[in-house]
Amino acid sequence: MKEERAMSSTVNRVRAAHDRVEAVDRPEIWIDLRPREEAEREARSLDERLAKGERLPLAGRLFAVKGNIDVAGLPTTAGCPSYAYDPAADAPVVARLRAAGAIVLGTTNLDQFATGLVGTRSPHGAVRNAHDPARVSGGSSSGSAVAVALGLVDFALGTDTAGSGRVPAAFNGIVGLKPTRGLVPTAGVVPACASIDCVTVFARTLPEAEQALSHMTTGTAPSLPGRAPGPWRIAIPPREQLGELDEGWAQAYEAAVDQLVRAGAVVRELDLTPFTEAAAMLYEGAFVAERYTAVGAFVDKATAANDPFLDPTVAAIITRARDLPAHRLYADMDRLSALRARALEQLADADALLLPTAPGHPTLAEVAADPLGANARLGRFTNSTNLFDLAAVAVPAGEVNGLPFGVMLIGPAHTDERLARVAGLLQPETRLAVVGAHLTGQPLNPQLLALGARLDRTTTTAPVYRLHALRTDPPKPGLVHVGEGGARIEAEVWRLPAEGLGRLLAALPRPMALGSVQLADGTHVPGFLCEPSAVVDAADITALGGWRSYLNAE
Amino acid sequence: MKEERAMSSTVNRVRAAHDRVEAVDRPEIWIDLRPREEAEREARSLDERLAKGERLPLAGRLFAVKGNIDVAGLPTTAGCPSYAYDPAADAPVVARLRAAGAIVLGTTNLDQFATGLVGTRSPHGAVRNAHDPARVSGGSSSGSAVAVALGLVDFALGTDTAGSGRVPAAFNGIVGLKPTRGLVPTAGVVPACASIDCVTVFARTLPEAEQALSHMTTGTAPSLPGRAPGPWRIAIPPREQLGELDEGWAQAYEAAVDQLVRAGAVVRELDLTPFTEAAAMLYEGAFVAERYTAVGAFVDKATAANDPFLDPTVAAIITRARDLPAHRLYADMDRLSALRARALEQLADADALLLPTAPGHPTLAEVAADPLGANARLGRFTNSTNLFDLAAVAVPAGEVNGLPFGVMLIGPAHTDERLARVAGLLQPETRLAVVGAHLTGQPLNPQLLALGARLDRTTTTAPVYRLHALRTDPPKPGLVHVGEGGARIEAEVWRLPAEGLGRLLAALPRPMALGSVQLADGTHVPGFLCEPSAVVDAADITALGGWRSYLNAE
Repeated sequence: MKEERAMSSTVNRVRAAHDRVEAVDRPEIWIDLRPREEAEREARSLDERLAKGERLPLAGRLFAVKGNIDVAGLPTTAGCPSYAYDPAADAPVVARLRAAGAIVLGTTNLDQFATGLVGTRSPHGAVRNAHDPARVSGGSSSGSAVAVALGLVDFALGTDTAGSGRVPAAFNGIVGLKPTRGLVPTAGVVPACASIDCVTVFARTLPEAEQALSHMTTGTAPSLPGRAPGPWRIAIPPREQLGELDEGWAQAYEAAVDQLVRAGAVVRELDLTPFTEAAAMLYEGAFVAERYTAVGAFVDKATAANDPFLDPTVAAIITRARDLPAHRLYADMDRLSALRARALEQLADADALLLPTAPGHPTLAEVAADPLGANARLGRFTNSTNLFDLAAVAVPAGEVNGLPFGVMLIGPAHTDERLARVAGLLQPETRLAVVGAHLTGQPLNPQLLALGARLDRTTTTAPVYRLHALRTDPPKPGLVHVGEGGARIEAEVWRLPAEGLGRLLAALPRPMALGSVQLADGTHVPGFLCEPSAVVDAADITALGGWRSYLNAE
Repeated sequence: MKEERAMSSTVNRVRAAHDRVEAVDRPEIWIDLRPREEAEREARSLDERLAKGERLPLAGRLFAVKGNIDVAGLPTTAGCPSYAYDPAADAPVVARLRAAGAIVLGTTNLDQFATGLVGTRSPHGAVRNAHDPARVSGGSSSGSAVAVALGLVDFALGTDTAGSGRVPAAFNGIVGLKPTRGLVPTAGVVPACASIDCVTVFARTLPEAEQALSHMTTGTAPSLPGRAPGPWRIAIPPREQLGELDEGWAQAYEAAVDQLVRAGAVVRELDLTPFTEAAAMLYEGAFVAERYTAVGAFVDKATAANDPFLDPTVAAIITRARDLPAHRLYADMDRLSALRARALEQLADADALLLPTAPGHPTLAEVAADPLGANARLGRFTNSTNLFDLAAVAVPAGEVNGLPFGVMLIGPAHTDERLARVAGLLQPETRLAVVGAHLTGQPLNPQLLALGARLDRTTTTAPVYRLHALRTDPPKPGLVHVGEGGARIEAEVWRLPAEGLGRLLAALPRPMALGSVQLADGTHVPGFLCEPSAVVDAADITALGGWRSYLNAE
């Protein structure tokens, strides 16, 4: 009975995803969807492995892959069908996610050759924003961001050179993690600027994004010097250095600052000049030549052949980069190095720099009217991050005029974890102790995953509980606090967005309850309990130590 | 009496150096000698400070500075008088050495703009080799190397981009330390390739070079992972990968390998291909554009004005670099990165890579006949070191046909100290305990310095000695082993080349002797003793604890 449930769940998720893909009718999101039968076959095989007890931490999670990242069996196009090649294998980052049990739904549209922050520069069509189809999705990871925002997948891979993993997150109201350069392998990715490209991840919640990221990284990051205890220190620039923002965005930014302050953070001022000066260098200086190194030979040939698939704006940018002299690149690298030293000095006294992710959100029409100008404006806050070798986390921070507003937390290389903790103050999280049907691999565990939950740790309760087998469908245990005469019960602690806990509670059927559960370490977290009446005629299974042991013993 | 001696010594050393400069009659070594009176005034002031008890670890050491490094009061020319500027201050590395008591004798000739490995590309004339004036000195730090080799200075500063701090060391039979990039500040240095330039030091012995280097570095280097105990592991390439070497050089190289093996090292084979492929990229690829970034604007203007000071070979190299495209530079950086990964993998299993410093030693005529070809050959083993961000130590390793032969030890960044220890096996070192006139600041201490000795530590003998004031001129103490009834006597332990100990012994006057001295920690090192007869009518000064206390008490 239990196995049948588990077997059906991943397959069902794939089917439901395909149904949603059809229902939302946004064909421009995708470059290639995997054949439905193939994805379902993979899902079935995963469910079988799960049923055999295999541990697959991302089992059943569906993800989309930006079209410049290799997925075996689908062409890698980088948004240009005439450039396409058939990759021999998954990019390592894709292979890792699949090895952890995640399933690729398809490859997504992008600004061609990942050159753009708008999401409109593609022969597959401009990707419309998830919340307002008259506005841009942001790019270049346009399809991936919108697929996540519309709930078509659980998470999606993007890439980020100028801000492609963050601007679309902000415009679509989702989370975008731009990890420290080198943490996630870029093998099997069509380079934009090979020396600074990063693979990124989008998800609807921070825990979900972090969980995916934890399966994407290579090796171990160098450990950071310990942080002195004390409140988070947030750096913010003086208002005038933010420049012109869309209407209402300055207030939304200030609200995010206030939210951090209310959560206990202290704020210090930072000089944004080195960041914005470096940002301007990304396209105005010689660094853009690296895009010619990557695909210049192809673009030259395609231009000569009047290739209809070539995006004219992208082609113009890359072609112009051909004649930039190497001596100017060295001069730019020198200047960048000086700007970076100033930036790092500024960051040294703070845990994170808080910025709006972008200065505004243009409509498709505005971008069509001024493709280069509109795009350049979008990178004002993001362009310097990879040039400076920094880490960044982009998170939603409310709405302005009914559309998502997003902020970024930026810090030195390898502060990823710290940035996520600070960002978490803007996306309040909670913990939840589960002892029964929500445990990993159990039938209701997908509920937690759908809420963006992430396993924090496996532990037991304090030795003050008794466990009963309730007569529910599906079968669930009831955890009852008895104090004396109690025992330790197997438990998992999950992290999930605070609003997810509310949703869980709203849908909770009798006789289950949520309350405070004491853990082995003495701390209390919210967790599953049950109404007293439920245990009256329920078998006491405390002696077995937990729900899984009971199921196995049955 | 004591003070007068000390006061005269540094001044005398400056005078003697100027006399030697005249005697050797190699005017092409120097670009600018400091005015004699100025140097003597500085020497006098140093001696006064020493007499007052100030601690100046490099007191009285004379050094020369390559003409592309700022020395306050002398023009910085980089080998091109029309380029010259008057620096506002010493380069930090020069300032540090002076603060430690070293005295600048002058600035030295170089391949113009540090562009060359030959030492002939200069309007100040080709620098002739110290041992054979028909052969090149090697470059670009030509004057500095020859000044050291001819004994005009104790040490000299060079710079090293392609091998300029090592090739001249090999050709002139001296030591050249090429520290890890970033260890020694390059502020106040005219850049060749700013991103990989290093300041280097030449000296006749390893201890002398290391002592100078210890006063040149900034901050603290990151600590290396501990090395597992066991014999030194030396990587060497298969013979055919060394390519064509000058006659007798392969045998000389093998002799160096044998010497390390006899000293206990184990040898493993390494694939030199990534090193030699990267070496070829330094001038053949786009990296040379960085030289245009540094001085291209000047060279263009000087070329247009038919500037007679411009070296035609150097000007041609820099001018050609102007049109190299930035996209090619990015491609080269990618390729370099892959080669570097292969190289580091090779080095991971060894403590050092041993190579001939150069493949051969051309005559001035050979270089004149083929300026580019002869130069390119010289960088075969050195060119990749800074591109790969490695450290290197170049040391003499015997002679071939009466001319110096040199080898290099190469290792990852921050293995400088380890490389020097391995190189020390080729330049055997010994320790020497001194208790009297050879102590720091005492009249015979310059004898040790002239032998390339370096203070290891200050300690005392084991409590088994008595000390007597001998009736010698200058006054010296006699250290006598008595076992019971002895006391601890103040001592200094110096490190010096083993051959220096031989020279010291050969010149030792009666009644002094060298023997085994037991130190406070129980170890024995060679040290100064005296013949028994000398103490018969000498005052026993043991109770004063040491020679300095006795002199002060007198």
